[in-house]
Amino acid sequence: MITVFGQSQDSLMLRKIYNESLEHGQAYNYLKVLCKQIGHRLSGSPEAEKAVKWAEKSMKDFGADTVFLQNIMVPHWVRGEKESASIISSKNNQSTPLNVLALGGSVGTNGKTIAANVVEVTSLDELDKLGTSKCAGKIVFINQHMDATKIMTFDAYGPAVTIRWAGAKRAAPLGAVAVIIRSVNPSLDDFPHTGTLHYPDTIKKIPACAVSTNDAEKLSAMLKSDPQLKIKLKMNCMQLPDAPSHNVSGEIKGADANAGYLIVGGHLDSWDTGEGAHDDGAGVVQAMEVLNLLKKAGIKPRHTIRAVAFMNEENGGKGGEYYAKNALEKNEKHIAAIESDCGGFTPRGFFLQGDSLKKEKIRSWKNLFESYQIHSFNFDGGGADIGHLKNQNTFLLGLLPDTQRYFDIHHSPNDVFEHVNRRELQLGAATMAAMIYLIDKYGLE
Amino acid sequence: MITVFGQSQDSLMLRKIYNESLEHGQAYNYLKVLCKQIGHRLSGSPEAEKAVKWAEKSMKDFGADTVFLQNIMVPHWVRGEKESASIISSKNNQSTPLNVLALGGSVGTNGKTIAANVVEVTSLDELDKLGTSKCAGKIVFINQHMDATKIMTFDAYGPAVTIRWAGAKRAAPLGAVAVIIRSVNPSLDDFPHTGTLHYPDTIKKIPACAVSTNDAEKLSAMLKSDPQLKIKLKMNCMQLPDAPSHNVSGEIKGADANAGYLIVGGHLDSWDTGEGAHDDGAGVVQAMEVLNLLKKAGIKPRHTIRAVAFMNEENGGKGGEYYAKNALEKNEKHIAAIESDCGGFTPRGFFLQGDSLKKEKIRSWKNLFESYQIHSFNFDGGGADIGHLKNQNTFLLGLLPDTQRYFDIHHSPNDVFEHVNRRELQLGAATMAAMIYLIDKYGLE
Repeated sequence: MITVFGQSQDSLMLRKIYNESLEHGQAYNYLKVLCKQIGHRLSGSPEAEKAVKWAEKSMKDFGADTVFLQNIMVPHWVRGEKESASIISSKNNQSTPLNVLALGGSVGTNGKTIAANVVEVTSLDELDKLGTSKCAGKIVFINQHMDATKIMTFDAYGPAVTIRWAGAKRAAPLGAVAVIIRSVNPSLDDFPHTGTLHYPDTIKKIPACAVSTNDAEKLSAMLKSDPQLKIKLKMNCMQLPDAPSHNVSGEIKGADANAGYLIVGGHLDSWDTGEGAHDDGAGVVQAMEVLNLLKKAGIKPRHTIRAVAFMNEENGGKGGEYYAKNALEKNEKHIAAIESDCGGFTPRGFFLQGDSLKKEKIRSWKNLFESYQIHSFNFDGGGADIGHLKNQNTFLLGLLPDTQRYFDIHHSPNDVFEHVNRRELQLGAATMAAMIYLIDKYGLE
Repeated sequence: MITVFGQSQDSLMLRKIYNESLEHGQAYNYLKVLCKQIGHRLSGSPEAEKAVKWAEKSMKDFGADTVFLQNIMVPHWVRGEKESASIISSKNNQSTPLNVLALGGSVGTNGKTIAANVVEVTSLDELDKLGTSKCAGKIVFINQHMDATKIMTFDAYGPAVTIRWAGAKRAAPLGAVAVIIRSVNPSLDDFPHTGTLHYPDTIKKIPACAVSTNDAEKLSAMLKSDPQLKIKLKMNCMQLPDAPSHNVSGEIKGADANAGYLIVGGHLDSWDTGEGAHDDGAGVVQAMEVLNLLKKAGIKPRHTIRAVAFMNEENGGKGGEYYAKNALEKNEKHIAAIESDCGGFTPRGFFLQGDSLKKEKIRSWKNLFESYQIHSFNFDGGGADIGHLKNQNTFLLGLLPDTQRYFDIHHSPNDVFEHVNRRELQLGAATMAAMIYLIDKYGLE
């Protein structure tokens, strides 16, 4: 229980943390460097390794007393020369260019151009029902919309993203030659969105790519007036052998060596389009900023506070996996982990995952956050990278920002620094630091 | 008191309203037309009259059964040919261009170019202390920052905007020849922000303009190394005779002719820069959308529901003033009024102003809004246009969106349609419609 005196001390401390972040925080400036000087940074790319070096140096700038790398091997997929596609009219052979973006992990077209008729479905269930007779030799176009009625856009993402993850493996057994999906984006715009797909070993790997929501509308309309149109598609992507890479951690040593660890993290890798600004440069710089904010507020933590920049969240999760394995081997007791990987928008609360008494303890601090318009502590969840710690009795938290704009940006050329607002980003960093301060002070037992 | 059965009916109705707005709402599409086909629309301009015609037609499209105009006279200020300014080094006479934007209502420089030394202050208090000896013959540069620590940016706007409103009238008696203010914007960027100023009749009118926050930093740095630099300034703005204009109202007649009116509104005019997208095209299309959402949800209101597009909020308030006067004359009992004039961002709650028992009644509906992540019902306020109704026992509500980005955009060339997100805008419209539904059903007594 927190006494009235404790509450008032805590409110003053939160005020200090938020003021520092809003007035002098550097997360935004560091994000600019990551986005503009390095840019996108898919696992295994030279840019990803530049980002590792940048993170190593930046952790020190933000006040880590120890910075270390963990060596991991990551999947290494490359897009190769930009994909090309066009729609060919069956009536007059006229060609209309189509802007496609290969899905991460997709095979290419083996140096050839595929040309095939197109069958449109609006869901994977509809695809299954079509069967081989309707799909063999064709390009399957999965034109499924995100459900606009979900207030939390992540609730609409789950059902929609299965077309990206499973479209190719569901279409291949039906004899389809390629898959084109409508981007997982609730808005109508011209940006195609990539993201990872899954090929089981037992199934033929067919190429898969995404078109923007506007292009999905256009293609659907063209198919209605010309069902015999063809699409020509060339994709040059391929999977290379796994490459060496790194997680980067920076920490402030705790006063009590036995108290264990509290970690805050985001992922350093991004898709190879846009600048990985919201996804997840934002999470990385917020995690680093937490170290700085605790120091500037004069907090001497009992637990060791560690900021982790995970590698390979997007297409393998090897960084998070290794981190958890290593923590177990070293017997590093992880009390709690906070991940920021939902964009650097205005913070609204936390996803919580773990023991229900611990959830209640965190919710007992709600009133401290209300002055910062942070109200949501009821959603379940943690994060993909910290998720691997779940079996180590670690309580998981995900920073929950406003979600309305996230899927306009996610995995697309639209995820650029210009779409990050400094105040929103710095408020998120402060919110994570405030939560770390409270968990450090009161524990979760 | 609402029974459990009533609550569940109400939650279904709110769900219906939000779904309709997110899936099929047209506010966003109409805003695009207003912004891109008409653009900015300062009171008295030809664009403002085009916007009146557009609103008249649009109200019908959104389902108003009656649409009418109110004739008003509005101040008519024109910018004339674009302002020009430059910084002249005292050391080598080198000229550096300075991007200035005249404040609304400012006098120009009478066809001449002013050239004068500059005195920098960081507040109006500091200006007063300088006195005539330091200010006479000079251009006063008021480089006051917005307070970054306020979580609600409107709390920082109030104190900061006094430099815009009162800078000229406080500098003129000290003999200053012009005023340049740092734009009222918490971010560092290149957009100058305008807005209205006040000249009392008793004081000499001197020209006043704004520079962007980046330019304010630059000018301040240059003044440190060259205190004798001069600024050359030419402004071509002027006040013309008042012009005729209009408020536009559209309404759905209530079932009970004696029940009175519930109104929702925004303002149709904007500053003559950008496109008046968030300020306040957003509020206008949201107000119109309320009519549509109520109809689509099958609600037959007891009160007459009126959407009002007010004219001249920005530089005179003549539309709001006339509207209230007319309501009183016609004995139109206004039960409640909702204004949306804080940007079309994710809705977070409502400002409330009026009788405290009515406030409590509204707060008793909070749980109905929680599923939509609407939590804030504690801020005091209503809105500039509906404010004139306050003495008619009208309860006032202001839609409170997320405020972090508003002042990056407000009154600047940066206020364009591209910065409005469809989901955020439509959620705001649904939130207003939901509140109107509840007030209509339960009253406020």
